[in-house]
Amino acid sequence: MTLRTAAEYRAGLSDRRNVFYQGERVKDVVGHPELALAVDHSALCFSIAEDRPDLAVRSTFETGDYSAFYHLPGTSEDLSARGRLIEEVSRRGAGTIVLKEVGSDAVFGLLRTVRGAGLEAARAFHRRCLDEDLALAVAQSDVKGHRALGPSEQDDPDLYLRIVASDTDSITVRGAKTHTSFSANADEIVVLPTRAMGPGDAAYAVSFAVPVDTPGLSLYVSPHLSGEPDDFSRPLSSTHKLLESLTVFDDVRVPRDRVFLDGDPTLAGPVAIGFVDYHRFTAINYKLPLIDLIVGAAHLVAEANGITRAGHVRDKLARLSAWAATVRGLAELSALKAREGEHGVWMPDPLLVNTAKYTFAHGYSEASATLVDLAGGLLATGPGGRDWANPEIRPVLEKYYAGAVPGEQRLRILGLVADLTASAYGGYQSVLATHAEGSLEAEKLQIARAHDTGPAIDYARTVAGV
Amino acid sequence: MTLRTAAEYRAGLSDRRNVFYQGERVKDVVGHPELALAVDHSALCFSIAEDRPDLAVRSTFETGDYSAFYHLPGTSEDLSARGRLIEEVSRRGAGTIVLKEVGSDAVFGLLRTVRGAGLEAARAFHRRCLDEDLALAVAQSDVKGHRALGPSEQDDPDLYLRIVASDTDSITVRGAKTHTSFSANADEIVVLPTRAMGPGDAAYAVSFAVPVDTPGLSLYVSPHLSGEPDDFSRPLSSTHKLLESLTVFDDVRVPRDRVFLDGDPTLAGPVAIGFVDYHRFTAINYKLPLIDLIVGAAHLVAEANGITRAGHVRDKLARLSAWAATVRGLAELSALKAREGEHGVWMPDPLLVNTAKYTFAHGYSEASATLVDLAGGLLATGPGGRDWANPEIRPVLEKYYAGAVPGEQRLRILGLVADLTASAYGGYQSVLATHAEGSLEAEKLQIARAHDTGPAIDYARTVAGV
Amino acid sequence: MTLRTAAEYRAGLSDRRNVFYQGERVKDVVGHPELALAVDHSALCFSIAEDRPDLAVRSTFETGDYSAFYHLPGTSEDLSARGRLIEEVSRRGAGTIVLKEVGSDAVFGLLRTVRGAGLEAARAFHRRCLDEDLALAVAQSDVKGHRALGPSEQDDPDLYLRIVASDTDSITVRGAKTHTSFSANADEIVVLPTRAMGPGDAAYAVSFAVPVDTPGLSLYVSPHLSGEPDDFSRPLSSTHKLLESLTVFDDVRVPRDRVFLDGDPTLAGPVAIGFVDYHRFTAINYKLPLIDLIVGAAHLVAEANGITRAGHVRDKLARLSAWAATVRGLAELSALKAREGEHGVWMPDPLLVNTAKYTFAHGYSEASATLVDLAGGLLATGPGGRDWANPEIRPVLEKYYAGAVPGEQRLRILGLVADLTASAYGGYQSVLATHAEGSLEAEKLQIARAHDTGPAIDYARTVAGV
Amino acid sequence: MTLRTAAEYRAGLSDRRNVFYQGERVKDVVGHPELALAVDHSALCFSIAEDRPDLAVRSTFETGDYSAFYHLPGTSEDLSARGRLIEEVSRRGAGTIVLKEVGSDAVFGLLRTVRGAGLEAARAFHRRCLDEDLALAVAQSDVKGHRALGPSEQDDPDLYLRIVASDTDSITVRGAKTHTSFSANADEIVVLPTRAMGPGDAAYAVSFAVPVDTPGLSLYVSPHLSGEPDDFSRPLSSTHKLLESLTVFDDVRVPRDRVFLDGDPTLAGPVAIGFVDYHRFTAINYKLPLIDLIVGAAHLVAEANGITRAGHVRDKLARLSAWAATVRGLAELSALKAREGEHGVWMPDPLLVNTAKYTFAHGYSEASATLVDLAGGLLATGPGGRDWANPEIRPVLEKYYAGAVPGEQRLRILGLVADLTASAYGGYQSVLATHAEGSLEAEKLQIARAHDTGPAIDYARTVAGV
Repeated sequence: MTLRTAAEYRAGLSDRRNVFYQGERVKDVVGHPELALAVDHSALCFSIAEDRPDLAVRSTFETGDYSAFYHLPGTSEDLSARGRLIEEVSRRGAGTIVLKEVGSDAVFGLLRTVRGAGLEAARAFHRRCLDEDLALAVAQSDVKGHRALGPSEQDDPDLYLRIVASDTDSITVRGAKTHTSFSANADEIVVLPTRAMGPGDAAYAVSFAVPVDTPGLSLYVSPHLSGEPDDFSRPLSSTHKLLESLTVFDDVRVPRDRVFLDGDPTLAGPVAIGFVDYHRFTAINYKLPLIDLIVGAAHLVAEANGITRAGHVRDKLARLSAWAATVRGLAELSALKAREGEHGVWMPDPLLVNTAKYTFAHGYSEASATLVDLAGGLLATGPGGRDWANPEIRPVLEKYYAGAVPGEQRLRILGLVADLTASAYGGYQSVLATHAEGSLEAEKLQIARAHDTGPAIDYARTVAGV
Repeated sequence: MTLRTAAEYRAGLSDRRNVFYQGERVKDVVGHPELALAVDHSALCFSIAEDRPDLAVRSTFETGDYSAFYHLPGTSEDLSARGRLIEEVSRRGAGTIVLKEVGSDAVFGLLRTVRGAGLEAARAFHRRCLDEDLALAVAQSDVKGHRALGPSEQDDPDLYLRIVASDTDSITVRGAKTHTSFSANADEIVVLPTRAMGPGDAAYAVSFAVPVDTPGLSLYVSPHLSGEPDDFSRPLSSTHKLLESLTVFDDVRVPRDRVFLDGDPTLAGPVAIGFVDYHRFTAINYKLPLIDLIVGAAHLVAEANGITRAGHVRDKLARLSAWAATVRGLAELSALKAREGEHGVWMPDPLLVNTAKYTFAHGYSEASATLVDLAGGLLATGPGGRDWANPEIRPVLEKYYAGAVPGEQRLRILGLVADLTASAYGGYQSVLATHAEGSLEAEKLQIARAHDTGPAIDYARTVAGV
Repeated sequence: MTLRTAAEYRAGLSDRRNVFYQGERVKDVVGHPELALAVDHSALCFSIAEDRPDLAVRSTFETGDYSAFYHLPGTSEDLSARGRLIEEVSRRGAGTIVLKEVGSDAVFGLLRTVRGAGLEAARAFHRRCLDEDLALAVAQSDVKGHRALGPSEQDDPDLYLRIVASDTDSITVRGAKTHTSFSANADEIVVLPTRAMGPGDAAYAVSFAVPVDTPGLSLYVSPHLSGEPDDFSRPLSSTHKLLESLTVFDDVRVPRDRVFLDGDPTLAGPVAIGFVDYHRFTAINYKLPLIDLIVGAAHLVAEANGITRAGHVRDKLARLSAWAATVRGLAELSALKAREGEHGVWMPDPLLVNTAKYTFAHGYSEASATLVDLAGGLLATGPGGRDWANPEIRPVLEKYYAGAVPGEQRLRILGLVADLTASAYGGYQSVLATHAEGSLEAEKLQIARAHDTGPAIDYARTVAGV
Repeated sequence: MTLRTAAEYRAGLSDRRNVFYQGERVKDVVGHPELALAVDHSALCFSIAEDRPDLAVRSTFETGDYSAFYHLPGTSEDLSARGRLIEEVSRRGAGTIVLKEVGSDAVFGLLRTVRGAGLEAARAFHRRCLDEDLALAVAQSDVKGHRALGPSEQDDPDLYLRIVASDTDSITVRGAKTHTSFSANADEIVVLPTRAMGPGDAAYAVSFAVPVDTPGLSLYVSPHLSGEPDDFSRPLSSTHKLLESLTVFDDVRVPRDRVFLDGDPTLAGPVAIGFVDYHRFTAINYKLPLIDLIVGAAHLVAEANGITRAGHVRDKLARLSAWAATVRGLAELSALKAREGEHGVWMPDPLLVNTAKYTFAHGYSEASATLVDLAGGLLATGPGGRDWANPEIRPVLEKYYAGAVPGEQRLRILGLVADLTASAYGGYQSVLATHAEGSLEAEKLQIARAHDTGPAIDYARTVAGV
């Protein structure tokens, strides 16, 4: 079978990639004490093929076995199966996206939207993903500068990634993408435009893929989740990590057979949305374990505190259940109501996908506040792993932090809640809930677009007699 | 075919039924100028069989044709079809329940939950519904007295309906049910217990069906929606009406072959919930046209006022779309995920049904407030049908109430919005949204019960290491 | 004393005013069976002088006694006293504005903002208010046509009131105002511009006062609150009524000494806002009894139903208390923090006034939904006054509608709640909450303008080190 | 003058106190690299006396100068002045409580509620606070064990602090308090009961004060805000810190002249609430700079991103303004409406205090979510101080993170926002918003208690006619 193992994935990351972290050049991502956590997290999307081949491996006569992440959806069932795969790998990743989801979303989006030579390049690239079982990062968000100004209106023309030179064999690009997840621990980076573009923005309408160690490419990884792991009081952030980078293209040369979009501004919007249509479906599936974690932690902490019978507690737990059932239900239905898109590629129902995402994101801060409310002040004032490790302190903690369950159990549950809500990791999740895979405003915009209100308007018109 | 026509339904209502309205005995419901509106409304569930037999008529070799409302769900598809039927008949009824939905919900619930002689009676009754195409009202809510006290704890033992005498052929019941929709314009009334009961409440565990003109039965119909119709400024309330009654049983004798539950308090809860499980599914389907009306009216009134391009207006319209998509999606999925219940009767997924109902009800007052917000003060200060009918006033109204559309169109749209939000009819709808087919608190309780949180709790436990 | 009695006020309404109601010309407002209700309501602002002269009467050596409504605020205490007067008269009016509040708001606004001859006219007019104890309506909202277009951009130039002719003695105006409260039962109408205007809108920058029976002036009164009173089940709408009109100026001639603004578009905005600054202060004071009614009714109905000890009920009652305390607190503080405005006239703090109004309006639909929630379905399905009047029906109602209190008491409390939430009157109040004295969006705009965010921004800048 | 300087305060912390941090005994709090941050923060309540004696210093003939924090409120003006002092010192502390506020709240509460020998001890202690300018921590929250069980019902009797022995000169106490702010950097600890107690809980009704280095007392300081400061990307957490401890009393002997409450369970509730009444007033004043920081940061980040003109941004900024104005207004009014309590000590209006606190806490997660929404994903994916310090990386960051303002400015503003919302510090603040100085549920309970709903109920009764 052509699927790579987790070990092979790790080995593939040793190259000349230009990665910076905490102000210093990182020589070996896999060997770096903190960054290795992120590699381990992403390796879950390789190891899942070993014990859950039913979910994670597909096969055809022509291709042999390949990673199910890259299986192009051709039916509603394909999308349901993809949803289940994404949920399962995220469950292993504690509710956070793992890696291959995002790259495959990008490839599917390209296959639906680009044309001509770009489409040929996209198809060849997709075949390489199947054959080589690639780990792809996606660089879409430009740094954008002044948000009220378009790409070609900025003071500095490089604030959106652009083509600065072009010849028969290649294009050369300059600029920077931001919020690039997985870039430091992927094999290649797929670049997509961030938005629809006007006629004057041709140089900015560019999409391609390059290996991460391509000359001129530099990754500045965010330190947001840095620090020493404490697996007693921070069970999530001590074992899971994502690398997000500022991804700078300093006159990077891209061979033509890797260019999917080359200066056609009319396609920038479709390519951007083409990815997003899939990526929000990914989002609403990979968030399901995070929602489960919140629901489960809420029940556990209420029980540990001995407050499950209070009326306001039951009310809050029921609201969490309604939120969870809504997101899961809409996610599931979005696959069941999938339809065929361009080039025979199927896509989930966009109204349902965006409504699920909106419900998740809109409800996230309330869910998080509910967890804080149920857990109590110990989230901010409780002990840490070093306290627990001291044999003189531990008995004190065991004695005085006993609740309706023994002290250790209560503290570990509180650690989970604190990590979800009150730690840098919790903050990271709340930023992701709001901005990743599209902002609240972007989702509302798509809901308004995707909702066919014509029949409702006609009906109201009839009833009103106008 | 055995289905009755609307005319046959109307004819069947002429009997000795004891109906009071506005303080007076009503001799002929069909001929009463106001009550006739309610008869017309309910007649829609008969007339639909004529032009939409695909939805409204079913047939078997044994039974011949019968009303699809009474088709016992035996598959997931049956429930989806029932959902579409309920939506369509409600669409004709301007988003308000029509009639046969409720009675069939009660019969299905009984067939799932009662036993022995009661089950035999229920089966025979179901067969009569098929053969005679009956119009049934359901009397479930007791008047209840002091809410903090149970049936047998009330000062007056009649505040929950109870069995006061019993012999080999019959039982005799006394008490009153409230909120009985359709009672004055139905053929028969099905009585169900309102809640679970304790061992001391045996006399209150009673379910049966009787014709509306049974001696001892009196209906006191609420005047809430009375008044002269103005079809210019109140397009809904001038054409649609529901009769709700206080339904008093003054020692009513019920033959044993019509008794479904006779004094077994352990079955009171299951019978009560058995109905509710179906009835909330009915609710989330019959509310869909009401939601469409709100969405459609919001777009129309924004357009009529010329404000569709304002940011806050688009935001509000998108929120309405998200609400509409969520209720519709969860309703649809609840049928797709139906499962077999007792006695082979299928039931929709209760978590999804209750979450859909909760989402509808929880969002209703915001949706209504949004409509008021978009429409403006004319809802309360605009002209009425008599103004419009005066040929000297009409030109003034046409001139001065022109918006982005001509004055007449704008006023009619505002009339629709006013009727939905600011009239007695709008008030009626808001009370229904909160209380009909179960209160907000009842839905939260059912969500908490129906949500299988075990896997989420186990998952959180694993991640927390406890 | 120069103050008029309620009887003198009534007598003053008999003139040639051109009032239409329900499509017909009304000869005598005071004698009309429905409109008399509105006259009685407004008469409360005269009768209050008799038993509460401490609140309602002021006096100076020059003027003698005069109505405290017209006392020009010259100190913070004056505004506090005005707040108490408005609250008390509204308490008599069941939480609805009574009459003199609005006219005096307009006069104060004019005295602060107009100039030259207009200011002289305004001062003389104010003196007439003192001397003749006038009842004034205020006509501010133009019909506006297409909302996205300004006054001079409309297809029909009359969609905002405008000056069509002008000579040394008078101006002549044409157009229509809408939402004009009290017009049919006031002595005079004060006309104000509805918004800021551009240089091309000079003809629309107009303000003046005329008697209601001025030739060319026609009032088309809304039928929204029409119908026969039922003081058993509708205690508010059977005893209180407001008349709102479309107020048409068909080439009305206005003498120059009654013109406050004559074609200066730069003053249109200040005059409009000058009124609003006072009128929202009026709003937050006259709404206090309405809030009290909601809070009180919530407690009464919870008690009548026997549910006061349920956790969710206590939670809802506490939320209502927080809302009530916030609006009342901000209203009170807005007077305490008043400051001197132009021409020595004092004005309440606009940030606090607008925040109070926003809190009231923003919370109104939730408060109303809470009342519906606590009261139950009887709001929509309960009996009416004619049922109660029938001696055969009454014992049935008494028996079966007993709760934790006797049936009559419970039904009357439910009638109050129904009238506040589920009747046309309740709808009227909800439209008023959203739109009267400024919409939700208008209040947010004023909050943003009135909030001096400079210190907060400087502080954040310092902390951020930028 | 008797006030101590910041240096004197620091010097006073060198004693034998038994403090643990990160699993290790801390020999010198002042010299510890991380804990020193907390000492610096608390020192602000000493240094303020130097440059703002008008706010921070009071004087009488008998006492000479003393810290205004300890000035017993005897008028409404005293409470207003206290509010301004607390706000100013919190402004220096970046919106976080500083130190002396909490101890003085406890002393005032004791002076209002204890009796006999306890009152004598409290008065003597208050005089010592004046004379020695003490820094007091307050230990109120017991660890509580199973929340559904009372103090004497727990499996382990030590889960609430209790008197284990007693003689003529002293009492001896055992147990632990949690969430004890400032304990490691205060001079003395005031112990208060955490709740009302029943007749069986006499041993738990105990209040006293002891020096922090009293034998048997151990402080286990939470590591929540540990880690290396990064003043580029975390301007708040790099300069401000609070120490919260588990405070264990291992048979601590307390001399009788320091005991305020000795076994009278009827006073436990009053003493607990007596503190809270003042402490929530402290809360709503010290939170004002935090609110300012949020409002200011929202404006700055919107401006830095170039999105201030978007409709949804203006809407969000206006909502923040309404929230800010409401909390500030209610806080201010609560002092203006203060009243005399027991023993001549004045207290702020409890309904307004609790409503202000509820408004703050209830709105905090929405405010925080708004900040995240306006700022964008860079909160989670942006660079850190070590990146900025590298001269090769800095130009890249300057170039690509330029927005509507230069890159450095934008990154620093984003750092402030990230620290407020997405860091461990932000999580700490959100836990505090929910739980410190009383939970959301506790505030609702106090609102319900403090709201005199009698007049509203009477009014509703009159209007309903019952």
